[in-house]
Parts: sequence; C-alpha cells; structure tokens
Amino acid sequence: MTKNITVAIDAMGGDHGVKVTVAAAIKCLARDPDLHVILVGVEDVVRTQLRTLRGIEDARLRIHHASEVVGMDESPALAMRNKKDSSMRVAINLVKSGEADACVSAGNTGALMATARFVLKMLPGIERPAIASELPTIKGRTFVLDLGANVDCTPEHLLQFGIMGAMLVSALERRDAPSVGLLNIGEEEIKGNEIVKQAAELLRHSGLNFYGNIEGDDIYKGTTDVVVCDGFVGNVALKTSEGLAKMISTMLREEFNRNILTKLAGLVALPVLKAFKKRVDPRRYNGATLLGLRGVVVKSHGGADRYAFEHAIRQAAREVKNNVQQRITEKMAVLHKDVA
Amino acid sequence: MTKNITVAIDAMGGDHGVKVTVAAAIKCLARDPDLHVILVGVEDVVRTQLRTLRGIEDARLRIHHASEVVGMDESPALAMRNKKDSSMRVAINLVKSGEADACVSAGNTGALMATARFVLKMLPGIERPAIASELPTIKGRTFVLDLGANVDCTPEHLLQFGIMGAMLVSALERRDAPSVGLLNIGEEEIKGNEIVKQAAELLRHSGLNFYGNIEGDDIYKGTTDVVVCDGFVGNVALKTSEGLAKMISTMLREEFNRNILTKLAGLVALPVLKAFKKRVDPRRYNGATLLGLRGVVVKSHGGADRYAFEHAIRQAAREVKNNVQQRITEKMAVLHKDVA
Repeated sequence: MTKNITVAIDAMGGDHGVKVTVAAAIKCLARDPDLHVILVGVEDVVRTQLRTLRGIEDARLRIHHASEVVGMDESPALAMRNKKDSSMRVAINLVKSGEADACVSAGNTGALMATARFVLKMLPGIERPAIASELPTIKGRTFVLDLGANVDCTPEHLLQFGIMGAMLVSALERRDAPSVGLLNIGEEEIKGNEIVKQAAELLRHSGLNFYGNIEGDDIYKGTTDVVVCDGFVGNVALKTSEGLAKMISTMLREEFNRNILTKLAGLVALPVLKAFKKRVDPRRYNGATLLGLRGVVVKSHGGADRYAFEHAIRQAAREVKNNVQQRITEKMAVLHKDVA
Repeated sequence: MTKNITVAIDAMGGDHGVKVTVAAAIKCLARDPDLHVILVGVEDVVRTQLRTLRGIEDARLRIHHASEVVGMDESPALAMRNKKDSSMRVAINLVKSGEADACVSAGNTGALMATARFVLKMLPGIERPAIASELPTIKGRTFVLDLGANVDCTPEHLLQFGIMGAMLVSALERRDAPSVGLLNIGEEEIKGNEIVKQAAELLRHSGLNFYGNIEGDDIYKGTTDVVVCDGFVGNVALKTSEGLAKMISTMLREEFNRNILTKLAGLVALPVLKAFKKRVDPRRYNGATLLGLRGVVVKSHGGADRYAFEHAIRQAAREVKNNVQQRITEKMAVLHKDVA
C-alpha cells in the first residue's frame, strides 16, 4: 500500500500567484494518484482560478482560506510578526499540525525561511536551516547547499550541511554513501580560509563519504553527489551560473538571427538545440528544499512558470515519500551518540 | 613618438613551457612593432625552440638565461626561498631593475604572487595584491577582482580592489568614471555579511562611481564595469563559470553527434556555432593582472595555448601603454590626502 502525501501550497506566492500555483497543482494531481493538495490563499481568488482551469474541489484537492499575502519585497521580520494569516504562514502551520506532509511556496525567501524556522523549529542537532538544490552535471546531477540561507557559517554548520545533503541524496536516490565535496579554491588541504579548513577536518571524521576539497568547476563536472559551501559562496555560484547560462543562450540566439543564412541554419538545427535546451532547462531543477526543519518546506523560484512549479511540488512529494527528515534525524542521533 | 614596451616572458612556465611561450612571443612581435620581448629561461632550451620556430634574436627579441624552473605544484614559499635563479623570479627581477616594463608568466600562481610581492613590493596605500581579469558580458566586458589572491579580506581591502579595478578600466578604456559593483547576495543594503556591508559604506564614500550591491548574474549581464569581491568568492565564481561553460559545450556536442541527422544539422550550423564560440572563447580573456604591485605582472592560465598566451602578452603591453600603475598611484594619493 502506498501512502497518500498531502502538500500544502502557498497559492498566493511568487510573481504569478494563483495563475501558476493552481495550474501546477491540477497537473501534479493528474499525474500522481498518491498526491493530495491543499491550496492555501484568499478563498475567492483561489476558487475563481480553479474554476477557470476546470479544476474540481474533491477529497484530493481542497482550498484552505488565508486572508493575507506576503509581498515579494516585504521585510521577513515584519511579515512574520504582522501577517499571521498569510498564505505562506498558514501553509506552514498545516505542516506543523500534521494536516499536510510538506509545503511549497514561491514567495519571499527570507520570510519563508524565518517563518518556517519559527513555526516548525529545527531538527535535533541542526543549528541552521540550509537551502539545497539540485543542479545538472555532465554525469547527472548534484545537490548544492547552502544556497543563501546563511552568510556566515562556522565549521560545525558546514559539517551539518554535509550531513543533511548526504542524507537527502541517500534518501532520494536510495544510495548508501553519497560523496560529499567541500567547495574551496584549490584541492590541496592547505588551501582556503580557516573556516573551510576546519570544516574539512570535521567532515573527514564524520563517517560521511567525504571526497575532500573541490573547486567551482567540479560542481558541473559532477565530481561529488553533494557540494557543501556557505550561503554567500553558494548563492554567488548559483546566480553567476544563471547569468552565464542566460548570456550564452542570448548570444546563441543572436548568432542564429544574424542573417537569412544563419536563420536557415537555425531552423535545421532547431530540434538539436531544443534537445540540448531541455537538458539544461533550469525549470527542471526548480524547487530548493529548506533542510534542517521539522517538516518538508520547498521554495520555488519566484518567477517559476507552471512547468517549473510542478517540479517544486514533485520535489516536496519525493522528500516525504523517501523519508528525508527521518534519515537526517537518525544520522544526527548516531553522530551525537558517537560524541557522547 | 610611441614608446617601446619591453615584456619579460617567463618562457619555462605553464603546462606547455617554451612550445607555447616562444611561439606566442614571435606572433606578438610580428603584430606589434612597439613591442620588445625578453625570453627568460634555460638558454639552450629557449634558443632551440626559437630556432625550430624560425624566430630571430635581434634588438626586439633577446634571451635572458635563468637556470631554474618553478614547478606547477611547488610550494610558493619554498620556490621563493630556494629558486633564486628561476625563470619566473628572473623575469620579475627584470621588471624591478627597469630592464623590462612588465612580465608575463603561465607558471604557478602562488609562487608568482609571492615572488612578485617580495621583489616588487606594493604600491603606496595598497595592502594586498589582487588578481583581476576580464570576463565577457552581454554588453561587452567587465573586470572582476579579486579572483583568488586573498581568501580573507577586510572592508578596506575590498575598497582598495574597487579603486584598483576602476583605475584599470579607466586607464585601459580611457573613461572617466567606470562603475563599480560589490558582489553580494541581494541588492538591498541590508543584505550580506558584515565585511561586505562595511565595504559598501567605504565604497559609497570613496569618490568612485559606486553602483552598489550586485548579484552573481550581474557579472555576465554587464551591470557594472568592475566587480569587487573577495578572492574566495571570486575564484569560486570564475571556476564555476568555467565548469558550466564546459558542460554546456560538451552537451551541445553530444546532441549534435547523436545520429546522422543531427550530425548533418551540425554541419549546417557549424559556421554559426563557430561565430558563437569565438565570442565566448576563454582564450580571448586569458591574462589576469596582479594589481597593486610596483610593476605590471600578468598571469596566464597554466594550460594556455599559443593564442591564449598571446592575449596575456598583449594584456601586459596594454597596461604599460596606458599607465595603469600611475593611475592607481595617483588615485591612492588623492584619497590619502582627503583622509589626512
């Protein structure tokens, strides 16, 4: 018997709100018979959109009213203090109460992080939540964390990120000992700043499959299954990648649009270019998970379209199905016993 | 009357040694009548290679003997202490003595940095050298620094990087007030770690054309002429970009090689793909400059081929021609007067 999974969706979040979130929910429900969805948001708005898209309220899809919306540029602290009935907060509350197994939001990252941490609390032994996301590599994929939750990290935080990342991959891919790399500016042990050096020491004695230091290019080489870094470095690496990918696709388009001959060449090459684009389509990697909380919380890109938001919902369902939370908790318990 | 420029080349450095360095020197001499070159290295080895390539020793091309070679993986400290007659060290000595206006090396980065700093000393008011390099953007190009010389930076170091970067661009492009962006993980002033926040304050009152915080994707958008960051973050951004670019080109090749139809499409699209490749060819951006020293020192990528190494030589000549050193010195003097 497979277990039903209920995902609470912050229907109002993101740049496109209900247009994207409701459409993605309907698509996901059609594809995954084990999935249940609670659309959290201003009831009238959500219901109107649902009807427009011919979605049906039933046992697997229900609307949960929340009267407020957190703005994309709102201060996380103010949003948390003043908007207790926001779609984001209520979706998280549903996870806390057990009515939902996970929640997904394309809203304000800072507010989501602060609210989730406040409402759900941390898993035992984990001091800080980390944002983890899948990235494509030449070999397949890798998980990178932290991508921006923590700008100043201690070596212990980096160790905890390593543990959470390894347990995430081990749960999702059902593999025993995924490899963990520490992002640095050289492979030698003497390289890097003091925090990274100490983190390497901790990771080396953690019982994880620690590969050692890796460099920026190792992310896309797929050298390790997990890449650990502080949130400042991870965020810069991620955003720099987004910028470079955009520049490359802009330049490719420009070259193929240069004149009638290049346009014809572009037509001939179109199926190949499409196949290529599909492989690196960032929408397929949408859905960053906030690891370390007592509950599954997935953050979608604010600008996500329906297709991208579907991936975020599926990411949340996958984490529940594969007991990511439990794996992290168990591994932390083992580590603490070893220390004690 | 144009001034002659003499560049000392560490002929033994890099993965390919004289094969690349001597060939590139001959090419550059043919293209630039103002250029003089001193090839520094084991005399016999350099001369043999020069003859193989039908190069001629004359007033514009001479060989300067140096008996030792710094290994690519050698400890910078040991190389500096024990190899006083290395091609790298002697090339730097020639800058110190005034026989050369600049030096170029594809050798060990750490050793080059340590030796250059020891021999040449810093410009007044600059505490640390920084590695700066040009990167392509959608709009043109931008200069990023530091790319790996300094793993721990104070706000004052970041300010100095901003000044050096701005003076570099202003000298090379003869522009008055190039814009300077501070790499951060959000555009808002409240974002980032303490060091970056304080650096923003210093930059805001520096008299530079400070744009404010930028994010990783702004590098390739070309949002600012100069991008300032610490060496850890800069190195990760650079290497991550290299990895992503490689992954994208590998995947493109794979898609065009999938079957006979895609191969035909590839043939049709080849001229366009070549034009595209030329625009983002990293060899055109080879030649990172070590800013802040009393002398022009340019570091070529270790794996550079002849074409790439030519760009490093030209970068060195361009800096001399445009008085980059003097601009930085003058700007620092103005700032110090303002403070005093």
